[in-house]
Amino acid sequence: MPIQIGVVGYGNLGRGVELALGAQPDMELAGVFTRRDPVSMRVAPGTSVYPYTDLLSDPGVDLDVLILCGGSRSDLPEQTPELAARYNVVDSFDTHAKIPEHFAAVENKRAPTSSIISCGWDPGLFSVNRVYAEAVLPTGDTSTFWGKGLSQGHSDAVRRVAGVQDAVQYTIPSEVAMAKARAGEATDGSAASKHNRHCYVVAEPDADTDEIRTAITTMPDYFVDYDTSVEFISAEELARDHSAMPHGGFVIHSGETSPGARQVMEYSLKLGSNPEFTASVLVAYARAAHRLAKEENYGVFTPFDIAPGLLHPRDPAWLRKNYL
Amino acid sequence: MPIQIGVVGYGNLGRGVELALGAQPDMELAGVFTRRDPVSMRVAPGTSVYPYTDLLSDPGVDLDVLILCGGSRSDLPEQTPELAARYNVVDSFDTHAKIPEHFAAVENKRAPTSSIISCGWDPGLFSVNRVYAEAVLPTGDTSTFWGKGLSQGHSDAVRRVAGVQDAVQYTIPSEVAMAKARAGEATDGSAASKHNRHCYVVAEPDADTDEIRTAITTMPDYFVDYDTSVEFISAEELARDHSAMPHGGFVIHSGETSPGARQVMEYSLKLGSNPEFTASVLVAYARAAHRLAKEENYGVFTPFDIAPGLLHPRDPAWLRKNYL
Repeated sequence: MPIQIGVVGYGNLGRGVELALGAQPDMELAGVFTRRDPVSMRVAPGTSVYPYTDLLSDPGVDLDVLILCGGSRSDLPEQTPELAARYNVVDSFDTHAKIPEHFAAVENKRAPTSSIISCGWDPGLFSVNRVYAEAVLPTGDTSTFWGKGLSQGHSDAVRRVAGVQDAVQYTIPSEVAMAKARAGEATDGSAASKHNRHCYVVAEPDADTDEIRTAITTMPDYFVDYDTSVEFISAEELARDHSAMPHGGFVIHSGETSPGARQVMEYSLKLGSNPEFTASVLVAYARAAHRLAKEENYGVFTPFDIAPGLLHPRDPAWLRKNYL
Repeated sequence: MPIQIGVVGYGNLGRGVELALGAQPDMELAGVFTRRDPVSMRVAPGTSVYPYTDLLSDPGVDLDVLILCGGSRSDLPEQTPELAARYNVVDSFDTHAKIPEHFAAVENKRAPTSSIISCGWDPGLFSVNRVYAEAVLPTGDTSTFWGKGLSQGHSDAVRRVAGVQDAVQYTIPSEVAMAKARAGEATDGSAASKHNRHCYVVAEPDADTDEIRTAITTMPDYFVDYDTSVEFISAEELARDHSAMPHGGFVIHSGETSPGARQVMEYSLKLGSNPEFTASVLVAYARAAHRLAKEENYGVFTPFDIAPGLLHPRDPAWLRKNYL
């Protein structure tokens, strides 16, 4: 019997989970649970849709693990604790500053279930690499760089500029800052010194492009501290070349074990689709949550607590023989 | 009380452990155990040296974990099972094909101890990254590349060629093959298609360098299938530029989550000193072995079974707040 997965929420991330489950040999989509009208939803053929409220009474289907695909601002702070009281759950809660609070809220619902929070790539795989690097090399520093990637918040900010019809903004890690991180040279550590910003803008027909450029590059908080470039393109070019959601980044640790013996550990992701990749990480951690629950290892966990072998479908003896 | 570490064997790896322990806040070198005459050994000031046989009777010092620094060919197959019967141990056993056999031998010594085998970088951190990548992205392939690094076995083979006074050989990953791996294009998978070899050779005074070059590049098994280059240098240059033991490599996984959505996960190491880095990995896993034993979680483990948080000196709440 494959592991039965319930997907809660059906935006880009939920659709990514639906796709990712199709690639896994031992898991099956039991159903999508939504707060929208189930009848109105366009899902893949064969996918069943149920109202969210069924989860709080009787969902009518077997559910080994729920994958929560809501947002970190308002959905997950409510849903993860509520559903962890009844199900094994995984989420990709990504508001770094509020993780201790979220962890405590989920922990508070003491129930014989296994929950893993913050299972994406940052937080998630990047966090895990920061810990491996710092544990192995206590000397030296770890730097995280994001991009090249589409930033939703910064794209929205550009769209609000007068004369802008549409726009996207990419965050791009600075090659100079990455070279410094690899060489173990100090940087000032600020996000602005480590990243550049590039905007593709569709201007309204009679807009003054110089004014738009100035309004963007001098915008407080969002752009003024950054090396920002602005490029004007047509609406057709924007639709054709900039509708994907790429992202990625780098975790670089550089330290010396003895004078002159520099050791550089580097982890990087280059993602064609940010939501589809995050969904793939969630699905692997859902397998781990299922295994923890089967061993009656209940509680709240993060990727720091999950051994890598728990994520993989094959058993430990197979992994030792083939991947060690 | 810091974690008390015993180091077994005092070659390059054992000296690396001695160095690495100095960088850890919560661990202490309790002593070096050796089969050589303890009096003859030059160790760092303050390091105590004991005969290996003391480990089999009474070492006279507290030992929470032993770090075994012998070779995989003859030392570890004997020492790891023997010492795991009495102590928590970690080793860097690296004969990939014999790992299941080694695991079984250590497992056979049922004792209330916690052992972790194959804790280096390959096997070790590279293996862990292969598992993370394959678990998250079941589509696509994982390729491992080694280098740029000094290969002891190939350097020895070159030194045996007539007319060669001294030599070193570097294994270098092929840029073309790495680009293919990142693009998700098939390679034939052989080590020869993924790596080049470069030899620095000091010729004897009257040797024919063309003959040496031909003897090397046509050598069966070691060189004939590879793109091999040979460069002649002086004994002074060899001593000055090639006495370090650099190594490293890449684990690259590339797969699509949907048509056109390519996702590339890449882990790389660039190591100024191979033995000092391997020693640093062993020390982090020694901390995990100590924690497993304190929880009475006894048995034999590999890096696949060890959650990343167990490697780090800080507690889970601190890690969640700062690194997640």
